[in-house]
Amino acid sequence: MRPSRPAVHPVEAPPPQTQGENADAAPVGVRMKDTQGGPGTPGGLGLRLVQVFFAAASLAAMASTNDFPSVTAFCYLVAAVILQCLWSLSLAIVDIYALLVKCSLRNLRAACIFSIGDLITGTLTLGAACASAGITVLIGNDLEMCAHNHCASFMTATAMAFISWFALAPSFVLNFWSVASRL
Amino acid sequence: MRPSRPAVHPVEAPPPQTQGENADAAPVGVRMKDTQGGPGTPGGLGLRLVQVFFAAASLAAMASTNDFPSVTAFCYLVAAVILQCLWSLSLAIVDIYALLVKCSLRNLRAACIFSIGDLITGTLTLGAACASAGITVLIGNDLEMCAHNHCASFMTATAMAFISWFALAPSFVLNFWSVASRL
Repeated sequence: MRPSRPAVHPVEAPPPQTQGENADAAPVGVRMKDTQGGPGTPGGLGLRLVQVFFAAASLAAMASTNDFPSVTAFCYLVAAVILQCLWSLSLAIVDIYALLVKCSLRNLRAACIFSIGDLITGTLTLGAACASAGITVLIGNDLEMCAHNHCASFMTATAMAFISWFALAPSFVLNFWSVASRL
Repeated sequence: MRPSRPAVHPVEAPPPQTQGENADAAPVGVRMKDTQGGPGTPGGLGLRLVQVFFAAASLAAMASTNDFPSVTAFCYLVAAVILQCLWSLSLAIVDIYALLVKCSLRNLRAACIFSIGDLITGTLTLGAACASAGITVLIGNDLEMCAHNHCASFMTATAMAFISWFALAPSFVLNFWSVASRL
């Protein structure tokens, strides 16, 4: 009688447990994809330049009238678009620098600062644009006093501020998104 | 000769491969932490009720004046706070239902719908509040015509709309955060 051999079951070594963890750990560093429109990308630079252009156009349209200081909301609009212009211009310069030296701006702290700044300037610009729109409509439609006022300039300034805000919104959403998906 | 028994090596079942995946997949379901203030929590319900209360207070203050329809921005404020009131009230009812039946509202589709709705109503309410504030300041400070107008009511309505918007902002941020950290 031949003794039966102990059965050898070639148990496949289970793939190391850490592999699964690494596969999930890797995306933590890579997670911030190079989204067009985010900081440090040509799309992001384009958005910033659009913001600067329309904020400057709004400022120019409002400053071309001589009676804007008599209305508080128009002074507020001027202050808000100046702030918007400076903020977007500085971020455009940062973007140009990052594109030239091919340095990545997709780190958490930068995204955090950018999204908070975008949120503040965006809220101020939207508020100022809405206040100016309210007064422009009041002067133009409700009181019908456009003959004595620079309605066209007020409307242009308001519209430019709105367009600047619309260009700011994607920048904010992309920055906030990358902060939220990172934490 | 006693035949040797086939050796039985009690091979421990390797931890099923899926466990690693599950351990990583589990957070996908659990990832949305039960953040106070999010949908389906007492904090979230409280925020919604604050929004409803102040939107209704703004509507009441504006409706108490008889001349608000003559100003477009005030009509827009009334429309925006009615929308805000309805939206927050429906979400408060959903929250109450979720708290009563202990059902979780932390799924992706719900968070997506809530954050888009919050974004739209929040932008409308902020815009309307800013427009009304611009006009109230114009009437009160720039033209000094408060003697012939209901400045107090206009200011109250504007302030209540702003408070309603401030209560809406955390709801939006929490919902958007949970969508972004989920995708």
